Amino acid sequence: MTQYSVINQRAPRLDAPDKATGRARYVDDLKLPGMLYGAILHSPLPHAKILNIDTSKAERLPGVKAVITAKEGGHIKYGVSPARYDETLFCVDKVRYIGDEVAAVAAVDLASALEALSLIKVDYEELPAVLTIEEALAEGAPILHEEFPRNICAEVHQEFGDVEAAFKECDLIRTDKFINKRQESAALEPHGCVADYDPWGNLTLYTSTQTPHYVMRTVAMVLGIPVGKVRVVKPYVGGGFGSKAEGTPAEMSAALLSKITGKPVKIVYSREEVFLHGRSRHQFIHEMTTGVKKDGTLVALKHSCYLDGGAYTSFGIATVYYAGSMLGGPYKLPNMKYDGYRVYTNKPACGAQRGHGAVAARALFEQQLDIIAEELDIDPIDLRLKNVMSRGDVTCNELNMSSLGMKECIEAVKDGSEWTKKKGKLPKGKGIGMACGFFVSGAGYPIYRSDTYHSTATIKLSEDGGTVNLYTGSAEIGQGSDTVLAMIAAEALGVRLEDVKVHSGDTEYGVDLGAYSSRQTLMSGHAVKEAAEAVRRQVIETVAEELDLDPEDIDIKEARMIFKRPNVDFTPIRQSYIREHRGWMDQPDEPYLTFKEAARLAYLRKGLIVGTGKYKPPKLGGSFKGAAVGTSPAYGCSAEVVEVTVDTETGKVTIDNMTDAHDCGFAINRTSVEGQMEGSLSMGLGEALFEEVKFGPDGKILNPNLSEYKIPTSLDVPDIKTIIVESNEPNGPFGAKEVGEGAIMPTIPAILNAVYDATGARIHELPLVPERVYMAIKKKNNEGK
Amino acid sequence: MTQYSVINQRAPRLDAPDKATGRARYVDDLKLPGMLYGAILHSPLPHAKILNIDTSKAERLPGVKAVITAKEGGHIKYGVSPARYDETLFCVDKVRYIGDEVAAVAAVDLASALEALSLIKVDYEELPAVLTIEEALAEGAPILHEEFPRNICAEVHQEFGDVEAAFKECDLIRTDKFINKRQESAALEPHGCVADYDPWGNLTLYTSTQTPHYVMRTVAMVLGIPVGKVRVVKPYVGGGFGSKAEGTPAEMSAALLSKITGKPVKIVYSREEVFLHGRSRHQFIHEMTTGVKKDGTLVALKHSCYLDGGAYTSFGIATVYYAGSMLGGPYKLPNMKYDGYRVYTNKPACGAQRGHGAVAARALFEQQLDIIAEELDIDPIDLRLKNVMSRGDVTCNELNMSSLGMKECIEAVKDGSEWTKKKGKLPKGKGIGMACGFFVSGAGYPIYRSDTYHSTATIKLSEDGGTVNLYTGSAEIGQGSDTVLAMIAAEALGVRLEDVKVHSGDTEYGVDLGAYSSRQTLMSGHAVKEAAEAVRRQVIETVAEELDLDPEDIDIKEARMIFKRPNVDFTPIRQSYIREHRGWMDQPDEPYLTFKEAARLAYLRKGLIVGTGKYKPPKLGGSFKGAAVGTSPAYGCSAEVVEVTVDTETGKVTIDNMTDAHDCGFAINRTSVEGQMEGSLSMGLGEALFEEVKFGPDGKILNPNLSEYKIPTSLDVPDIKTIIVESNEPNGPFGAKEVGEGAIMPTIPAILNAVYDATGARIHELPLVPERVYMAIKKKNNEGK
Repeated sequence: MTQYSVINQRAPRLDAPDKATGRARYVDDLKLPGMLYGAILHSPLPHAKILNIDTSKAERLPGVKAVITAKEGGHIKYGVSPARYDETLFCVDKVRYIGDEVAAVAAVDLASALEALSLIKVDYEELPAVLTIEEALAEGAPILHEEFPRNICAEVHQEFGDVEAAFKECDLIRTDKFINKRQESAALEPHGCVADYDPWGNLTLYTSTQTPHYVMRTVAMVLGIPVGKVRVVKPYVGGGFGSKAEGTPAEMSAALLSKITGKPVKIVYSREEVFLHGRSRHQFIHEMTTGVKKDGTLVALKHSCYLDGGAYTSFGIATVYYAGSMLGGPYKLPNMKYDGYRVYTNKPACGAQRGHGAVAARALFEQQLDIIAEELDIDPIDLRLKNVMSRGDVTCNELNMSSLGMKECIEAVKDGSEWTKKKGKLPKGKGIGMACGFFVSGAGYPIYRSDTYHSTATIKLSEDGGTVNLYTGSAEIGQGSDTVLAMIAAEALGVRLEDVKVHSGDTEYGVDLGAYSSRQTLMSGHAVKEAAEAVRRQVIETVAEELDLDPEDIDIKEARMIFKRPNVDFTPIRQSYIREHRGWMDQPDEPYLTFKEAARLAYLRKGLIVGTGKYKPPKLGGSFKGAAVGTSPAYGCSAEVVEVTVDTETGKVTIDNMTDAHDCGFAINRTSVEGQMEGSLSMGLGEALFEEVKFGPDGKILNPNLSEYKIPTSLDVPDIKTIIVESNEPNGPFGAKEVGEGAIMPTIPAILNAVYDATGARIHELPLVPERVYMAIKKKNNEGK
Repeated sequence: MTQYSVINQRAPRLDAPDKATGRARYVDDLKLPGMLYGAILHSPLPHAKILNIDTSKAERLPGVKAVITAKEGGHIKYGVSPARYDETLFCVDKVRYIGDEVAAVAAVDLASALEALSLIKVDYEELPAVLTIEEALAEGAPILHEEFPRNICAEVHQEFGDVEAAFKECDLIRTDKFINKRQESAALEPHGCVADYDPWGNLTLYTSTQTPHYVMRTVAMVLGIPVGKVRVVKPYVGGGFGSKAEGTPAEMSAALLSKITGKPVKIVYSREEVFLHGRSRHQFIHEMTTGVKKDGTLVALKHSCYLDGGAYTSFGIATVYYAGSMLGGPYKLPNMKYDGYRVYTNKPACGAQRGHGAVAARALFEQQLDIIAEELDIDPIDLRLKNVMSRGDVTCNELNMSSLGMKECIEAVKDGSEWTKKKGKLPKGKGIGMACGFFVSGAGYPIYRSDTYHSTATIKLSEDGGTVNLYTGSAEIGQGSDTVLAMIAAEALGVRLEDVKVHSGDTEYGVDLGAYSSRQTLMSGHAVKEAAEAVRRQVIETVAEELDLDPEDIDIKEARMIFKRPNVDFTPIRQSYIREHRGWMDQPDEPYLTFKEAARLAYLRKGLIVGTGKYKPPKLGGSFKGAAVGTSPAYGCSAEVVEVTVDTETGKVTIDNMTDAHDCGFAINRTSVEGQMEGSLSMGLGEALFEEVKFGPDGKILNPNLSEYKIPTSLDVPDIKTIIVESNEPNGPFGAKEVGEGAIMPTIPAILNAVYDATGARIHELPLVPERVYMAIKKKNNEGK
């Protein structure tokens, strides 16, 4: 650890002062001269033919500058996966959910825009709708998309080993079902953007997004503008969690309205619109059969699941893959069969959310492991330790554990939670549970296969040598990536964190696929490190040339030039620096040559000092169809112990404490690693205990607001003990890998297992609202009678 | 000319659509969240001791967030020339002119800021003031700056050859005096800025400036911030003409107020403040003695002049040098003596203005040449042709005419104006006159000697290969530099103008000294060309490698890849491009390989494609002290013929037509070259006919507004015939050199000579308002009696 001077420390967040002082500018703070306000007309019906749209009254309303419908913006099908483009900006022939986009308006103020929406007359012919997986799959069900006559958006069928044969050798086979509910990521900042299309055909789009690059791609495609003429700029973003990982109708509408009107156009979603377009977490219905030997050795897993996808695909193809493939680890499991179906329903489309696709399957599997452990009378921790993989192992579905501190995580939470002292020894109404999880560290394959480089980065020194400007298209969305990348740049170049100025979240800075799949530290970090090394080399070479030294004899550390040979006389450089800077700069009086002096010399000798870096993952993926999805250059893992108190009279669950150990490979910013763990745990807590997007019988969301859709507040979150495990990932910059999502995995099953420990009741449906817990306790008590 | 496909054409201005549609955003259009409004308190007295400043009442006014005086911002002396820092942001001990900065306020709105100013109580002890050169130089005159006990801010004494000895050999010696008046550049957009200081100590300053780099330097120095932490961003600028070529009190006050309050602060000058801080053109009093042989051969020139500098130095040291040195050309003149004095007076400081320092001296000299021609009975054009220098000549003060189409310019206007048909043959009251001029094309030395590179540039290709992003710190201020630099980039890289997207006017893009001394086409152009060539090389090398060709066999032209060998099969590249772009990009079907395809390939193979360029002038300057000022890598020159009508009853002068030929080396954008000529001519017309900043007896400006200070409108400007002369400057990119300022030189003397031709009256004082012309005619008529 001592070999590093910047990374592996606790660094203050670069965005903290702006956020603490209210200076941070979000997209809704942006006002451009002449800016118009846009609003979107949503379908009031879950499924209907559009017979006619009359916009004439809206167009005549004073202050209205443009009204657009499918006529203007319905030509190009788009989506997240080029293999499954099933969306148009506005509905062409029919609407598919309550909220589907029908038209948009730009006006001089928001009130006029909203009034104009009310003046658009749409004639619908209502169609029967399907609102559940069961309805959608029923014989003769109404069809959402003609191309998908069974309402199956995507299906995955995989088998590794021979599951049926393996089951025959098992001593214990256990089958369970599990249902979670649709969950909203509930980022505090709604989606929003300002689009500014100039007379030369350049579109600048300021938007609250996790993925400027993908938004650029989608908007360019839908509007028919060359990608090189679309610039996406991400201001401060108030959270994303997956919901802002793709282009939105707001972005495309604003861009098209700006193109038509020649004015900047702002569209910011209301909270209700966030629920409609926020690409919530899917509802899954799982059935899982696990077979083990009596010593607890895992032998086979059969898993089938159905996803309620809503009306469009979004990230759903990846979701249905992840749901299966992420069970391949972190345990040795030679036989695995997976059948997954994503189903279209007349509800808002679901997409990616923290722990994409893998959370609910993990919840069931880790609960099942506890059930099996109990039946075999093995401590749940011992059962897991018996089966755990370690570095170098490859899963049956060909995921390569290039590093894996799974065992260390389990042992860390076992110690950290005082498991042995507590397990089975807690008073009535209290329970302790544990679980493990693992997740990708960056998707090995990009959404667009032509994105050869997943990240590029540029570093440019200021002419005074004092500021290291880092340019990256990566997206700081509150997770701390700007700080982490600045730390990587500082360490690799040999300067201090405060010397680095980060410019990020702008497609003009080059390719970066953005903040999703826990990819930025590993992938953007690699590119940044390479760029920093390129700059470092130029500075060292200049000094070496100037002092007639071998570059190998020069190092940079903590913004000082280090000479590995004794008695190097650097006064010529200092003298030149002092002469150069007379009257406008500080004059160094340190007994060593500063980086600033050396960097200034490099400027004087060579002009602009610029270094670039890039990253593409090594060849990944297995030999089977669909292997791409789920493969990653690295996998993070975590283990968690949760203690709960359950009020058996009311069913109310209180989380008493949580102990989480996460293998992040190597902690770049220890504070941020812990912050990400805490964030994942609190999000998992909310999903376990009370989050559920509810629908009325007509398919309308009943609780599309943060007063009725509850997310955890600080009062709900207990003391969290975070333990960082470092496994030194060979594919990560300085050994680092993910921490942003993986820690949510064990949270839900650990709570489920702890609630069982407290109550003796197994619950296979989320969320654990008091009513459900109470009924489960009651049922269990009745069974016991 | 045919070898080029972009340059030497008539290109549409890149900024035209924004300006024509009102989209162009100037600094006053900028509003940042939480922004405060600043205002500056000016001295009401021309010269006074500050006894006390009481800001307490102002501070208590609701809405006021900060009040600053010399206590906060008076520590650091600054100026344009490091050799002569005589200004502080706020007056420390005394005020030196009506308008001198005493305090500044930031408040939530402008009204509160202005009210706060009225509540600041300053106790002054009035001091006697000097308001003219004569008063300032008088024995026992009040002294403005203790360090300059004779009120002489700067003096220059130079002699080349032996002037007195040379006069003895002359057949004709002529001595004249000449007085011009203080002239305001009257850019239509006032100076203004928004300063935004962040919690990490980074200052971003959006400002209407010609010189982002120098503003960065000055503000960093005055506020004590490292240069690398100051970013200056120039939005659209509504003209500068020299008045925006240095850091302003508005910029420094806004920056300091932003630092103190933690909020963005906007300060925009009122028109009156522009007159106070706009660094007007100096008033000069010249005396010039010219000796010639009877055949017209120029032998010797003795020139002395006094400049009314106002209270501070500003660019004055350069001004007093230019006034002398620019007479070294464009004529062969073996002996020259110059004595120049810049004098401090209790008036607003003067600085640089189009044709910096050289305009008035040129007016006198070219008038004197006409007088001499008449006395020797030589046609004024023949006199000039006899003496004119040409390529390769070096002036007596060691200016190198690396290219000089002076003879061609003279002949062009002679033909173009039908001089021979008209000279001496016009009816009474009508006159024709001509004159020549020349000027630097970039100052050979920067203001700060440590500015090794005068310009740097970066070019980066977009990932789709379709957009060439050019980054330059150069300043588009309405003169068309963005378009010219884009054309240079396009030509050097081999693409079309519309492929280039210019990002300029931002110190973050690297060093560029800005828009002054007619430097951008030559200096920034060089850097841009080098950057484009670097990118071109990378693209060609990638294609060569891919197709196993010699890079020498590949060229790029009009965005096509040209193969110099027959039958090159580029289908592998196209196939890969089509595969890569499926679903999101246009597919090329041209029979040739497009640049876009090649550039995309380069991205796929190498990642970011970035090229950088830089420029520093070759070693310049003579062997004598002060040689630096006036030396340039190149000199533009021009000749002009003007026809006038003078109403001898009223003295009113009407310009009938103007014919101007300018040697710009090589015209990058022919439309812009002509536009710059027309602009210079109209500006010279205003200065010749009616522009004068007038002072009352207390030193207060009497006409600080555009209703009383007249500048030419389209009604005042006649038909202008512009003739482009190209001399292929070896030090210029593609042979180009200046056109922005030089053409103002001949305008004033050509008008003076034409008025003489029309009236027989020689006038040695500007402006030629009817009263002055009438009195001169009357005097001449009286003399004639």
